[in-house]
Amino acid sequence: MILALTGGTGGAKLVQGLAAEIDPADLTIICNTADDAIFHGLYVSPDIDTIVYTLAGLNDEQKGWGLAGETFVGLEQLRRLGEEVWFKLGDKDLATHILRTALLQQGLTLSEATRRIRSALGVKSEILPMSDDRIESRIVTANGEISFQEYFVRERWTPEVKRVFFAGIDQSKPAPRVLQAISKAAGIIICPSNPITSIGPILAVPGIRQALRDASARVLAVSPIVARAAITGPAHTLMMAHDLEPSVTGIAKAYADLLDLLIVDPEDQSLQSEIEKLGVKPVSADIRMNSLANKQRLARQVLALLLK
Amino acid sequence: MILALTGGTGGAKLVQGLAAEIDPADLTIICNTADDAIFHGLYVSPDIDTIVYTLAGLNDEQKGWGLAGETFVGLEQLRRLGEEVWFKLGDKDLATHILRTALLQQGLTLSEATRRIRSALGVKSEILPMSDDRIESRIVTANGEISFQEYFVRERWTPEVKRVFFAGIDQSKPAPRVLQAISKAAGIIICPSNPITSIGPILAVPGIRQALRDASARVLAVSPIVARAAITGPAHTLMMAHDLEPSVTGIAKAYADLLDLLIVDPEDQSLQSEIEKLGVKPVSADIRMNSLANKQRLARQVLALLLK
Repeated sequence: MILALTGGTGGAKLVQGLAAEIDPADLTIICNTADDAIFHGLYVSPDIDTIVYTLAGLNDEQKGWGLAGETFVGLEQLRRLGEEVWFKLGDKDLATHILRTALLQQGLTLSEATRRIRSALGVKSEILPMSDDRIESRIVTANGEISFQEYFVRERWTPEVKRVFFAGIDQSKPAPRVLQAISKAAGIIICPSNPITSIGPILAVPGIRQALRDASARVLAVSPIVARAAITGPAHTLMMAHDLEPSVTGIAKAYADLLDLLIVDPEDQSLQSEIEKLGVKPVSADIRMNSLANKQRLARQVLALLLK
Repeated sequence: MILALTGGTGGAKLVQGLAAEIDPADLTIICNTADDAIFHGLYVSPDIDTIVYTLAGLNDEQKGWGLAGETFVGLEQLRRLGEEVWFKLGDKDLATHILRTALLQQGLTLSEATRRIRSALGVKSEILPMSDDRIESRIVTANGEISFQEYFVRERWTPEVKRVFFAGIDQSKPAPRVLQAISKAAGIIICPSNPITSIGPILAVPGIRQALRDASARVLAVSPIVARAAITGPAHTLMMAHDLEPSVTGIAKAYADLLDLLIVDPEDQSLQSEIEKLGVKPVSADIRMNSLANKQRLARQVLALLLK
């Protein structure tokens, strides 16, 4: 079994490549849930949904988020009803959130609700939330504290970030099967997701980081950063706020205690010796995943490095 | 202030006529809530919604239920996710239920949620649920007990009905302002709605029936039955199950203790003496409301009878 730790967008591309290269039933994914949020009373889990939609082949490749062929009739009506609707929930997507909220209300865990949803959509890979407990990324800005979605979607990551913390994380537990998946995996991949707000919360759930250090499988990360710029999103800014240099070296530092291999872009060749000094083996590969062929090629390289 | 007691479809037509004939702010409506149901975890209040949508001018006149220009993208996705979707919730309609459920979850009462929703849609008439407590019409059929929506929508009112009861009604209280509206009204109208499952529950909320008996205003009903057939829906069958003859005489009997006037169709002229014997004054008028002009004409007659 191959295990991937991931956030949404960037990570989903590699996950898609992996699921195309191996039997999807042999792929387990641990998802960040610290970006989860309640909108209009509905429990939204953006990273889980991105992974589920991507593996179900329902994602919108053009937009890079949400479902293909999505409409926004319900959201427009919510606006008319006086709701703030800056988080773009499409009509199909709302169905997921309605069902998930109902299942949670009935007493199911987020793990159980996720299993039900991904199974209904024909996804064979196991998708585990990092935790069934509520954990929330809080972004401390110069103008006060906001949620991740407020920072990322509503404010389009413009506020100056002082630091990020994960409310509820100290009391949280890994979801069932998470630690087992880490110890049983034949190879572990940290996807090219934001190290602070996507992978950071997963590693901060008590027990997960240590399990990764103790894992018998190799741990490989794919850098979300090329030549000191995040491929997408605010990784650069958030890393700086946490005294991590916004480069592949910063990525290596973030994971050094548990990482064996780090795939970096050829543009970052000059930083390979810095990475080696951290005890991580750098491997150069084209990490831009702008086509399915690219995703599969990178997935093949990752799998070869992990399993050889 | 004119007060109307109503269910959904038939009653909404007269309510629409009334709101066109007087200042809508002078119209108060008490709605049946015993048909309310939870679908996919969302609290749906079909009669309140029909009244709100109708007074907001958003209702689908062709279909006779729901919102004009409605789409069903979310519902189709819920089906794909494995949900039973026999209750047709459109995307705009779902927005109402999402918001209402969120407001109830936040601790608002159904009255408060209804006020917020109707105000957002520009409806000036006060719309009061009969109660803020959960009351549920249960239909006892030859094959067991089902909810009203299961009977009416899923089974298309085909099962043989033994009786109807309202779960939770004994412990319920009228919603705030309901008793006050009854005592202060200048005229009270029982709309042409089903006497068993629409008006029946309203009258069964402890205190409401007595308040109508004690009201200083005249109480007028418009028959939902013409020549022994319900204009729409299963009134006929349900009345028989409750030993009420399915005719204008049965309607008069159902309300005799509180009714002053009953508007019946000219076709039912032969039954007027039976109605008079019950102490109710029958008035003949064309009660079919198949155009806005018809609705307004009937509303004018109703208002003239109540206020003269």
